[in-house]
Amino acid sequence: MSTNAEIKFGPFPITKQFYLVLTHAVHQVFLKTQHSFGVVNLKPILPGHVLVCPLRPHRRLTDLSAAETADLFETVQRVQRMLARVYFKTDRPEDGGSFTVAVQDGPESGQTVPHVHVHVIPRVAGDMGEGEAVDEIYVKMASEEANVGGALWDVTRRPEPGGGMPRVEDACREPREPADMHAEANMYKEALERVQ
Amino acid sequence: MSTNAEIKFGPFPITKQFYLVLTHAVHQVFLKTQHSFGVVNLKPILPGHVLVCPLRPHRRLTDLSAAETADLFETVQRVQRMLARVYFKTDRPEDGGSFTVAVQDGPESGQTVPHVHVHVIPRVAGDMGEGEAVDEIYVKMASEEANVGGALWDVTRRPEPGGGMPRVEDACREPREPADMHAEANMYKEALERVQ
Repeated sequence: MSTNAEIKFGPFPITKQFYLVLTHAVHQVFLKTQHSFGVVNLKPILPGHVLVCPLRPHRRLTDLSAAETADLFETVQRVQRMLARVYFKTDRPEDGGSFTVAVQDGPESGQTVPHVHVHVIPRVAGDMGEGEAVDEIYVKMASEEANVGGALWDVTRRPEPGGGMPRVEDACREPREPADMHAEANMYKEALERVQ
Repeated sequence: MSTNAEIKFGPFPITKQFYLVLTHAVHQVFLKTQHSFGVVNLKPILPGHVLVCPLRPHRRLTDLSAAETADLFETVQRVQRMLARVYFKTDRPEDGGSFTVAVQDGPESGQTVPHVHVHVIPRVAGDMGEGEAVDEIYVKMASEEANVGGALWDVTRRPEPGGGMPRVEDACREPREPADMHAEANMYKEALERVQ
């Protein structure tokens, strides 16, 4: 693995200040654990589409320590319970809907930001239309907007999606205002207090 | 969660004998850990497409204990290192290619078999063609063939894919012979002995 100094997350050099920048400047982070954080999106594919990431800016899933790996996916589960409460109105995720949980682990699989991030996307019947449109979620997941922490991005410096993935320009997915994302993050913070 | 007695994995009622059936009758399992196992596919989407599952037949990711969750994703990482050695010819996955790592967590996200399974799919540039064809991997992942442990299935009883996902009938993905799958499983077992 290359040294951290060579890695950027959007316009931000990834340094020990990374997390501070993310939390205090952007207000999109709704959860921080010992090794992980959860962040809302600038252009969620579906309502509740969030990212769960390790605090350390690892490029690849195989770079995480055992403690970081355990914490990352326990955080995914906790976020699923929270999202189930918010979007499915239930304490039991299996009663209300499903989740797409996916990691694009490397550029050939569609990863654009070289910082491991787990997509967690609440799913309900018909949410992406019927027939082949259902799978459009994966096309959108491969777009650069779905990979980012929203306002972190300098639009002049966004990378093209890797792996030959098409760039999705969807008029229905307008970037949101920072205040909207902050409000969403706050809603999730409150909901997290009510789940294990 | 419903009682286990109501759950089937393909034609097999899921009982405490589940794992024994899987290992001794089918020969597709290439790795068993304390809480997880890895299994080859009847119709892999791409070479090296395997599934990593908890030994206990949990329906949903949020049903796994902390120990099971940690073990499941540590096993995913170990399998990635093994697949990198076999398919990318490197000990460092990031040097050779990428991975699609995905869980369809519930029927509305395309899960057909009610037993948590993590798809681990090696990816290299151009492996799914160019342009929009790149994302065809997700359409195929939603097909019933990609969700199964191969010969476990009684073709007369295969469920239709959930969540409105299209059924993929790809002439290039003929079911393999049990001996071929057994040979693949053995190749992975040997490769696992050389990775951490």
